Amino acid sequence: MSGLFGVINTKNESEGVAQTAYYGIFSLQHRGQESAGIAINNSGTFMVHKNSGMVADIFDEVTLNTLKGSCAVAHTRGGSDRETGTDAIQPTLIKSRVGNIAMSSDSVILNDHELRENLKNLGAIFQSNTDSEIILSLFSRNRIATDDCEHALLETMKEIRGVYAIILMTENKLIGIRDPWGMRPLSLGKKGDTYMLSSENCAFDALDAEYIRDLEPGEIVSIDKNGVTSLYYDDSVSSEERIRNGKVCIFEYVYVARPDSFIDCTSIYDSRYRTGMALAKEHPCECDIVIGAPDSGNAAALGFADGLGVPYGSGLLKNRYVGRTFIKSTQEQRELAVKLKFAVLKTAIAGKRVAIVDDSLVRGTTTKHIIRFLKENGAKEVHVRLASPEVKYPCCYGVNASKGVDLPARTKTVEEIRDMIGADSLGYISLESLRESLKGIHCGCCSACFDGNYIAGTEEAESKTE
Amino acid sequence: MSGLFGVINTKNESEGVAQTAYYGIFSLQHRGQESAGIAINNSGTFMVHKNSGMVADIFDEVTLNTLKGSCAVAHTRGGSDRETGTDAIQPTLIKSRVGNIAMSSDSVILNDHELRENLKNLGAIFQSNTDSEIILSLFSRNRIATDDCEHALLETMKEIRGVYAIILMTENKLIGIRDPWGMRPLSLGKKGDTYMLSSENCAFDALDAEYIRDLEPGEIVSIDKNGVTSLYYDDSVSSEERIRNGKVCIFEYVYVARPDSFIDCTSIYDSRYRTGMALAKEHPCECDIVIGAPDSGNAAALGFADGLGVPYGSGLLKNRYVGRTFIKSTQEQRELAVKLKFAVLKTAIAGKRVAIVDDSLVRGTTTKHIIRFLKENGAKEVHVRLASPEVKYPCCYGVNASKGVDLPARTKTVEEIRDMIGADSLGYISLESLRESLKGIHCGCCSACFDGNYIAGTEEAESKTE
Amino acid sequence: MSGLFGVINTKNESEGVAQTAYYGIFSLQHRGQESAGIAINNSGTFMVHKNSGMVADIFDEVTLNTLKGSCAVAHTRGGSDRETGTDAIQPTLIKSRVGNIAMSSDSVILNDHELRENLKNLGAIFQSNTDSEIILSLFSRNRIATDDCEHALLETMKEIRGVYAIILMTENKLIGIRDPWGMRPLSLGKKGDTYMLSSENCAFDALDAEYIRDLEPGEIVSIDKNGVTSLYYDDSVSSEERIRNGKVCIFEYVYVARPDSFIDCTSIYDSRYRTGMALAKEHPCECDIVIGAPDSGNAAALGFADGLGVPYGSGLLKNRYVGRTFIKSTQEQRELAVKLKFAVLKTAIAGKRVAIVDDSLVRGTTTKHIIRFLKENGAKEVHVRLASPEVKYPCCYGVNASKGVDLPARTKTVEEIRDMIGADSLGYISLESLRESLKGIHCGCCSACFDGNYIAGTEEAESKTE
Amino acid sequence: MSGLFGVINTKNESEGVAQTAYYGIFSLQHRGQESAGIAINNSGTFMVHKNSGMVADIFDEVTLNTLKGSCAVAHTRGGSDRETGTDAIQPTLIKSRVGNIAMSSDSVILNDHELRENLKNLGAIFQSNTDSEIILSLFSRNRIATDDCEHALLETMKEIRGVYAIILMTENKLIGIRDPWGMRPLSLGKKGDTYMLSSENCAFDALDAEYIRDLEPGEIVSIDKNGVTSLYYDDSVSSEERIRNGKVCIFEYVYVARPDSFIDCTSIYDSRYRTGMALAKEHPCECDIVIGAPDSGNAAALGFADGLGVPYGSGLLKNRYVGRTFIKSTQEQRELAVKLKFAVLKTAIAGKRVAIVDDSLVRGTTTKHIIRFLKENGAKEVHVRLASPEVKYPCCYGVNASKGVDLPARTKTVEEIRDMIGADSLGYISLESLRESLKGIHCGCCSACFDGNYIAGTEEAESKTE
Repeated sequence: MSGLFGVINTKNESEGVAQTAYYGIFSLQHRGQESAGIAINNSGTFMVHKNSGMVADIFDEVTLNTLKGSCAVAHTRGGSDRETGTDAIQPTLIKSRVGNIAMSSDSVILNDHELRENLKNLGAIFQSNTDSEIILSLFSRNRIATDDCEHALLETMKEIRGVYAIILMTENKLIGIRDPWGMRPLSLGKKGDTYMLSSENCAFDALDAEYIRDLEPGEIVSIDKNGVTSLYYDDSVSSEERIRNGKVCIFEYVYVARPDSFIDCTSIYDSRYRTGMALAKEHPCECDIVIGAPDSGNAAALGFADGLGVPYGSGLLKNRYVGRTFIKSTQEQRELAVKLKFAVLKTAIAGKRVAIVDDSLVRGTTTKHIIRFLKENGAKEVHVRLASPEVKYPCCYGVNASKGVDLPARTKTVEEIRDMIGADSLGYISLESLRESLKGIHCGCCSACFDGNYIAGTEEAESKTE
Repeated sequence: MSGLFGVINTKNESEGVAQTAYYGIFSLQHRGQESAGIAINNSGTFMVHKNSGMVADIFDEVTLNTLKGSCAVAHTRGGSDRETGTDAIQPTLIKSRVGNIAMSSDSVILNDHELRENLKNLGAIFQSNTDSEIILSLFSRNRIATDDCEHALLETMKEIRGVYAIILMTENKLIGIRDPWGMRPLSLGKKGDTYMLSSENCAFDALDAEYIRDLEPGEIVSIDKNGVTSLYYDDSVSSEERIRNGKVCIFEYVYVARPDSFIDCTSIYDSRYRTGMALAKEHPCECDIVIGAPDSGNAAALGFADGLGVPYGSGLLKNRYVGRTFIKSTQEQRELAVKLKFAVLKTAIAGKRVAIVDDSLVRGTTTKHIIRFLKENGAKEVHVRLASPEVKYPCCYGVNASKGVDLPARTKTVEEIRDMIGADSLGYISLESLRESLKGIHCGCCSACFDGNYIAGTEEAESKTE
Repeated sequence: MSGLFGVINTKNESEGVAQTAYYGIFSLQHRGQESAGIAINNSGTFMVHKNSGMVADIFDEVTLNTLKGSCAVAHTRGGSDRETGTDAIQPTLIKSRVGNIAMSSDSVILNDHELRENLKNLGAIFQSNTDSEIILSLFSRNRIATDDCEHALLETMKEIRGVYAIILMTENKLIGIRDPWGMRPLSLGKKGDTYMLSSENCAFDALDAEYIRDLEPGEIVSIDKNGVTSLYYDDSVSSEERIRNGKVCIFEYVYVARPDSFIDCTSIYDSRYRTGMALAKEHPCECDIVIGAPDSGNAAALGFADGLGVPYGSGLLKNRYVGRTFIKSTQEQRELAVKLKFAVLKTAIAGKRVAIVDDSLVRGTTTKHIIRFLKENGAKEVHVRLASPEVKYPCCYGVNASKGVDLPARTKTVEEIRDMIGADSLGYISLESLRESLKGIHCGCCSACFDGNYIAGTEEAESKTE
Repeated sequence: MSGLFGVINTKNESEGVAQTAYYGIFSLQHRGQESAGIAINNSGTFMVHKNSGMVADIFDEVTLNTLKGSCAVAHTRGGSDRETGTDAIQPTLIKSRVGNIAMSSDSVILNDHELRENLKNLGAIFQSNTDSEIILSLFSRNRIATDDCEHALLETMKEIRGVYAIILMTENKLIGIRDPWGMRPLSLGKKGDTYMLSSENCAFDALDAEYIRDLEPGEIVSIDKNGVTSLYYDDSVSSEERIRNGKVCIFEYVYVARPDSFIDCTSIYDSRYRTGMALAKEHPCECDIVIGAPDSGNAAALGFADGLGVPYGSGLLKNRYVGRTFIKSTQEQRELAVKLKFAVLKTAIAGKRVAIVDDSLVRGTTTKHIIRFLKENGAKEVHVRLASPEVKYPCCYGVNASKGVDLPARTKTVEEIRDMIGADSLGYISLESLRESLKGIHCGCCSACFDGNYIAGTEEAESKTE
């Protein structure tokens, strides 16, 4: 997963542009925090500063002051099995026949192998294992016979099968693209003469900017000194229909997005709270206290507590300092790692029947440890409620960590899983209720991980087609 | 502030000792995270690994594996105006006539200037600006005419005026010291043949160790292969009396300690929750939602909500990624910094009368910004409740950031402060109620920052004496 | 300038291959020491380790042990105005339709602009400002319709105008290329089942390998498990003729190459010594001692001393520790820098008439300072003799630092230069004598910097053609 | 070994002081290049910047500009078995009753163990394993009852048995000390209002400063705003006698000092040249060419060639890039290492009878390899001449690497060593001739490594005395 951010000053002023890009990706780090970068356009001259690490460690004031220009694209990304090494750190910069181009993308291209082979057969060379090189190579070829960047990008979208959000900077434009299903979010904001594109609108709040709207599925938004224009992957239908047919990833609501963001017009926090309320109806429970699995289960836990009329409380705290470098080579150390990550407030839960609400259950390992700790610290009963249905199908769109995992929900009954994790009761919200909780959302959702309905196809399907 | 940790295996086994020290300081990082170190005793040979940075960045598995030994002292510390530079990173290692000594301390020595001058006049040289060098130089001299380390340390305590917790490792012992008032916490734990000393017992939970007890004020605990023995600064009174006369820092309960810790037999979380309950009685308020100032106000906010019978909710989120390297040179950037640090959940607070509970108010700058953000995002009213009294006196014991600050509570009325921060109402808990909320605590508290009663004296007083 | 090295074990054994590559570029660092790298082929899987800095700082034993494979290309390079940034550090790795390719090159492509534009117009994208990307893009396209790599490289050579040496590694071959004029050196060596390619044969000595021969101008040497085969840019002529028509850069003999190397069958040391002998005939001088400008003037100084029958001595020492990070912002500091770089042996030169022999004079600034130091330290007279003719024309082939410099020899007479540098007499060897001193050399030389005869054309000429 | 440098502006001006210190230690790096530092006194406030690595890597212009002050001491040091770790990097800074003190020293204290124990018994604590801490602790105690620093230092000298040069900076003085035998060199220089102290006067040349004189054995030179004053370890004798009784380390002439330095009024270069001349008389040889073992044998080789009337030539080159990080874990790699370090000029030596002159032979391993390479490259005969006598006794004063080595000259005859290294003949200069070659030197020499006469005593002797 990645956080994308772009900014353009339509009056060609450079004051604060790099800083805006910095604050933008700073606010999007929950989407990925292993590397980050900012590329900036200073009247056609492009500069980039990028590195592995967290945003605040990569940039300092001196660096930002050297990044001068009126348009920038920025990126913050998490780890990836597909795209590795320092070459994969974005934004990607190239020179093509139409000049300098910088690109930030968050993509899973399902036909990447086929596209790469086709391009190689035309003489292209690849210097990394990233989707970016494929997209930019396709675009560069499409641009030869196409009058403008936007139509060349449209051609490129037609060649790519996959899900993506892209922000691209040419020498005079900032362009945003959302895949035909709108599976990845991308939103448009504005502050004075400055337009912004961001994976989530929470970045606009931090920047005191106005959240205009989400891009439509399949939309190419192009911003230059003349303002904003759009082009659509499928222009045979109305915007309304396009939006209604969209299929944003349901896990954005369940887990990925920041609670204060809105995606496709629905508040993330509210949808999670409503999910908790719905859970209380579907899977009520006799308990003395409701707690959230920190931090992702808190909003649903509040809804669940209010739904039941049972007090919400703190019972479990998350150690803020747990990072990626943790030591856990033996089984005992792995258990210690969970103990270091979560602190139990004994006095708050001892002797009580505890209901704990989590956003989802993929493997169940951590949940199992948490239940044991709660019981060791005196909880009389531990009831687990999940604010998403059973994860039965691996996500091939790069979102939750279900790929390549032996998913318990695929082979076990709810009762068997309850037994495995040692809970006194276990309840998953139904997909129907989860969808209802997203009320206000203008479009549908991709819920492949719950129902196996792979809207954008799968890699396997691609292989067969070849 | 610092976090101290010590560990000794009384069977002289070294398996897992460095790892235990690592997990110990890992759990104490809320007390300071700018540098850390572990010193270890391998049958008389001492090694140390220390650096600036956070615990998980300083140590990796390879490093821990090279730290072999059956006894270790470790340290994690925050910034300090008094002790600066890499020389100040602890533990401190020296060689004296009784061999190798390593020491971790968390101290404010009030007569440091006088002690240092006296020692210099005896020919001592100082290589840093740390209290550690003073303590170790005094100890080293006292040890000449004293039969054992413990009595030499007792002599040293009598020369020092100040507050401190100390963990000291000699070639065959691990020794813990708590100052005569017990102002700094220090607790004793055990797991199998391994004894541990820790600033807070939360580290014992993480290590599955048993929390035995807190050290008494003025106690020197000495642990070696024969077990645990104690010596007291004042042995003319009983343990019971000693404990009753103790004066632990009240800010440990208000802000410093981790919620899952117990200090002097009182749960930090519970005392904060009860403070919130008491606040509800002292300063009730008509409101629709109670929120905590994240994260330190959450426990009191829960108590306040329950006390009032008003729903507790989420309204403000803290960005986990805000670190020390943040960019804030202009006024506008400082405001942005607060916006980046806190995200408002609009839908949760819009149109509502919001009560926000914070642990304390020192300068009020951040609180002012938060109130404005809440109102900009639609809060109809914002009522502020503080889980501690007015901070009127600077702490000269190194705890809260009140030293050298123009404290508003010193010169302004509550009404004036309410006006300054833009709240609709403002209520501070009374010192009496705060003390009552710490029920179960076996001792008294130092509350100098609230009442000006400097139990251990002040630097000014010292200067006069000279 | 760069040093190139390649190694292939024809029995597919990997023992010592990375180490051989390491020692190879270690021995070539006089050709460039600002960055270095090794790429290795492990049965089709390519790895690379490269960085800025010196060879011994970039690689350690652990790193070399991770570089496993039976074929490697390596590179060490100096700074460049044309190719900058970390992207320009070689070897360059790409994936093409014929698999992985790694390349080390030392090139100046004169029609680089034109080639890059042509490729862009065909849809290629460029990610750096290096010649490598151009060469690999051309090759990759040429390979589509060409049966083998060698002929695709031949096609590529025909498109490029410029000078170069290239070592290229495919998944089963190691290929070396010398430009049609043979302006850059490249030699072939062998040790057991291992073939090597190296910019200079001095690397073979260090590796106890046999020096087989230099590549012919325009030769493509291809080595795989079946042995060595060759292809030629111009196969209409015999090897003998090809060699005779070659035009290796004369500055290799004057300054660049290591004294113990042989280029095109002539010993560098001997040619320099003979140049000194010839100087003694052309520009004899009354003097008491002959010294070399360390270290590049020493061999010619010995020849000059022997030619004159005057004792050779030490008079000037070079500080080994002067590196690139030196501080020289003011005029005074720049003078200090020269003083720090050279130490005068007062007692050896005081009261004497000193003849100092240097390899060449480009700007004359350092020479001027050296003369002054010698006189300040008591030299009665200072006579300067140069082992190369007047540098009147900038080198556009990337060798000496004459490009963009206001060359004194272009506008001043020898007498005016003598006056400028403060020498008592000044003598340049004639180009004729210099050429004669290279006896044994099988080919001609490019001496464009002395006579303006730009054998491979110039960038200006290219621009006109476009 | 270390290089020491000190500088004081007697008008209290700070312009260029740090830069002077930088250039000073830059010129002294042949005495040690593993760590370096500069401490500076800005009106009583002391700053220090020090690190491991080479001078040019440790300091940059920004760092030097932050080092403001009118007096500085600096240090560059090689590795040491006795003083290890980052704590041992000098200058050492302390605070004592007479304020800040910074010290650079190059010492071997023979009674260090005894002194350290005595100090510990008085209550001192030690934070490193350096001589500096001992010297400063002794000084600090001696200063209590002594009126001035100089006499306290004199007291300290009387307690220490060993050899040393020391530069010490107090808040208003710069003080230099040479041990009672003058075994370590230290010289005084001046430029305008600035006095300098340096291990060797070569630093004064680089700084355009005047070389005033060497310190006398046992002299304490003290420089402040009033100028230069001296105090002597033994003031019962005249300066003349003191100098005549001095015993500077003979290896300074043989190997350590820079050829352009003068120590105790004798040119290093000249004494080496004369040694070569004397060798030609003592051990003449039939040969066609005389070469030096680079770089330390070159001066003697020139003298030898002139003495014999045989041409001096280049035959062996040293690779400038060989550093400390070299890889040599197997025997084969160690041989490669020597090959990489030395390049043979085949054409210069093939078919010839070669005489090679080296400064000394300690183990003989490298010499053996060199002889083999010369023969492999065609040398008909190889005759080895050594510009110092047989090294039969380990140096316990920290100079040559003879300590702990199985010295061949201790047990083997010259003929056996000749056979071991594979030379056709071998000749060592006699100690008598070596001493005569140092003509002009005002004092005697310590030649313990050649004759076992340990003038300053040995550690063993110390142990017995205890």
